[in-house]
Amino acid sequence: MRIITLLTDFGHADPFVGIMKGVILGINPRVQIVDLCHGVSPQDVLEAAFLLKCSYRYFPKGTIHLVVVDPGVGGMRKGLVAEGRHGYYVAPDNGVLSYLFASGEIRRVVEITAEAYLLHPVSQTFHGRDVFAPVAGHLSRRSGIDRFGQATRRPVRLRLPVSTKKSARVLVGSILHVDRFGNLITNISGREISALHPERGITVSIKGRTMHGLEQSYDRLKPGETGTILGSAGYLEIFANQRSAARLLKAGRGVAVRVEGGRRHKRG
Amino acid sequence: MRIITLLTDFGHADPFVGIMKGVILGINPRVQIVDLCHGVSPQDVLEAAFLLKCSYRYFPKGTIHLVVVDPGVGGMRKGLVAEGRHGYYVAPDNGVLSYLFASGEIRRVVEITAEAYLLHPVSQTFHGRDVFAPVAGHLSRRSGIDRFGQATRRPVRLRLPVSTKKSARVLVGSILHVDRFGNLITNISGREISALHPERGITVSIKGRTMHGLEQSYDRLKPGETGTILGSAGYLEIFANQRSAARLLKAGRGVAVRVEGGRRHKRG
Amino acid sequence: MRIITLLTDFGHADPFVGIMKGVILGINPRVQIVDLCHGVSPQDVLEAAFLLKCSYRYFPKGTIHLVVVDPGVGGMRKGLVAEGRHGYYVAPDNGVLSYLFASGEIRRVVEITAEAYLLHPVSQTFHGRDVFAPVAGHLSRRSGIDRFGQATRRPVRLRLPVSTKKSARVLVGSILHVDRFGNLITNISGREISALHPERGITVSIKGRTMHGLEQSYDRLKPGETGTILGSAGYLEIFANQRSAARLLKAGRGVAVRVEGGRRHKRG
Repeated sequence: MRIITLLTDFGHADPFVGIMKGVILGINPRVQIVDLCHGVSPQDVLEAAFLLKCSYRYFPKGTIHLVVVDPGVGGMRKGLVAEGRHGYYVAPDNGVLSYLFASGEIRRVVEITAEAYLLHPVSQTFHGRDVFAPVAGHLSRRSGIDRFGQATRRPVRLRLPVSTKKSARVLVGSILHVDRFGNLITNISGREISALHPERGITVSIKGRTMHGLEQSYDRLKPGETGTILGSAGYLEIFANQRSAARLLKAGRGVAVRVEGGRRHKRG
Repeated sequence: MRIITLLTDFGHADPFVGIMKGVILGINPRVQIVDLCHGVSPQDVLEAAFLLKCSYRYFPKGTIHLVVVDPGVGGMRKGLVAEGRHGYYVAPDNGVLSYLFASGEIRRVVEITAEAYLLHPVSQTFHGRDVFAPVAGHLSRRSGIDRFGQATRRPVRLRLPVSTKKSARVLVGSILHVDRFGNLITNISGREISALHPERGITVSIKGRTMHGLEQSYDRLKPGETGTILGSAGYLEIFANQRSAARLLKAGRGVAVRVEGGRRHKRG
Repeated sequence: MRIITLLTDFGHADPFVGIMKGVILGINPRVQIVDLCHGVSPQDVLEAAFLLKCSYRYFPKGTIHLVVVDPGVGGMRKGLVAEGRHGYYVAPDNGVLSYLFASGEIRRVVEITAEAYLLHPVSQTFHGRDVFAPVAGHLSRRSGIDRFGQATRRPVRLRLPVSTKKSARVLVGSILHVDRFGNLITNISGREISALHPERGITVSIKGRTMHGLEQSYDRLKPGETGTILGSAGYLEIFANQRSAARLLKAGRGVAVRVEGGRRHKRG
């Protein structure tokens, strides 16, 4: 059974997501629909891009990821269907697939132009229902993205907030996402941390507070104490045991984080 | 595979919805359950009625819509099973199907009296679990609503907040729903707008603010600017590009909206 | 088709739940996944334990309940798979199954040690994805819990907040849960209430307010009036018709509730 996941900023106060599922099931009653997340901040394309990147690998190969975070709905922005090494992606052409372009996951992209696959009349405000859900539904019945439109070579790519190396021992990054527990997820990867030789000691600073060393689990610290850990998405996280680090540090997305690696022990 | 949708005011902080799904799957393990929306304002029957009306057409024919917004649970209000042109409906008899009665969607209604289909002992506070979910589960296994009770001719109907025509060129309506993005959905339909000849110019006023013309997409306006558009449910919407119109205009459900059509160009 | 339910404190702002579903479906594409509830207060093991106890009976026999409320993730706490009379349970060993141990539902428990069933590398912060979801997925394909590890005899049990009998006619309990509507669910069971002979008159006191008698439905009272009722989970509830009792009484979890049974009519 084919899987379609849904990633949107539609929240849970409206029937938008339910309606999209109705449209999909009308096209393919045998598909398995999974809610990836509907709590993306309204119209926050970069956040959705990051969450998609952290998630797609955990689904079976061939899963179709339908992303609707779409501030440009009804305007000039295009719609995309992409084929990746691991999955398929149906989304507005607004940069929400940027991480997947950057990582090489996506191999081919077409622009959605085939009117026959859309729900008519196409509204001006809900392409999730009228464009993206029907395209995902049809794709789940039969593979092959070329019937939806022409290949496109220049999809929109966001400038991704990457960390920068200040010196051999110093990295500066920023907070990319705050999760439900108030953990602060940075854009500094485990690989970058490893290159700083954390076994020699590492120091992380945010908003004037400095933390030493990486913890092995949240509960190594006292309740309310802040620390750092390698998070499940593969990035450095700042947390407070049993509390919200976001609230304690009054920190949110975009706040700068500085990481300093340890010095090599001098010999002799 | 038969589909049952769930529309409730149960929110997401409790296992109410999950429990209803358990009951349904115990009766029919092969049914596909879809969450339509659980974010209806607590006990707001009219809001649920409106959201159901905007949604049911997007599901395959024969879909069963289970609605539990039920301030009168455990009291004298009855339970209904209805057969429509497009779908089936299982709900308390409190007016939540009013739009579907008004539009002619519903053709026959029975009052739920057959004890054999209920989960005993029936609680005083959770008929979603003990009455409506089991009835929907049984209905999904075999069509035909008559085994659940006697036909009823006088189901409760709410007075729906319709727009009123003040003159040939002026309509007054109100806000029916505020969506996740803060868009204000009115009860003035696209058909009513068309009759005002919007191509000659149209003016929409709410809380002392006046907007001219209908936009073709949100992003035709500058971020934060307010405008009007024909929304995806077929009604006039007031929006603010990339912002919440509800917050900017301090407007919510029930607030009056005035629409004035354009004058015919005088000749000569 | 086997059912797996998910009960977590992950909320809806992150893709944690969606990712767990991806992992499960990668192992068993034919399983039916049901969201029991993701709105458990962050890291509130006791609340999750209570909600699970109120829910599991409504699912078909053999349902697998996956619980991830896990403040000790990555530390020394163990993971459990339990076989019950009614269902199966996969959860951290932190007391979240306490009610099911106390009631005799659970018959056998093993500690998860079989590395072959986990998703490697196992992260320090998301065992829902790397430990519990894969174990539940494998269990849904084939019954038998012994392949996951050794039987354990001393799983963690919480001290459950039980009501206490002050005299033959007086019980003191507390609020265990506040639901979406602001209803206050106590830990005083219907059986305990029955033993107080409520037909002779019963008095419930909370925060200095006293209510007389049990209502048969919410709408027996005027809107905003507070009363008591036997709730759907089998416990005494304090409610306010069409309002939030929690807000009106400024009461939440842990607040004391006193119940006094009626006096026997004197004869002669």
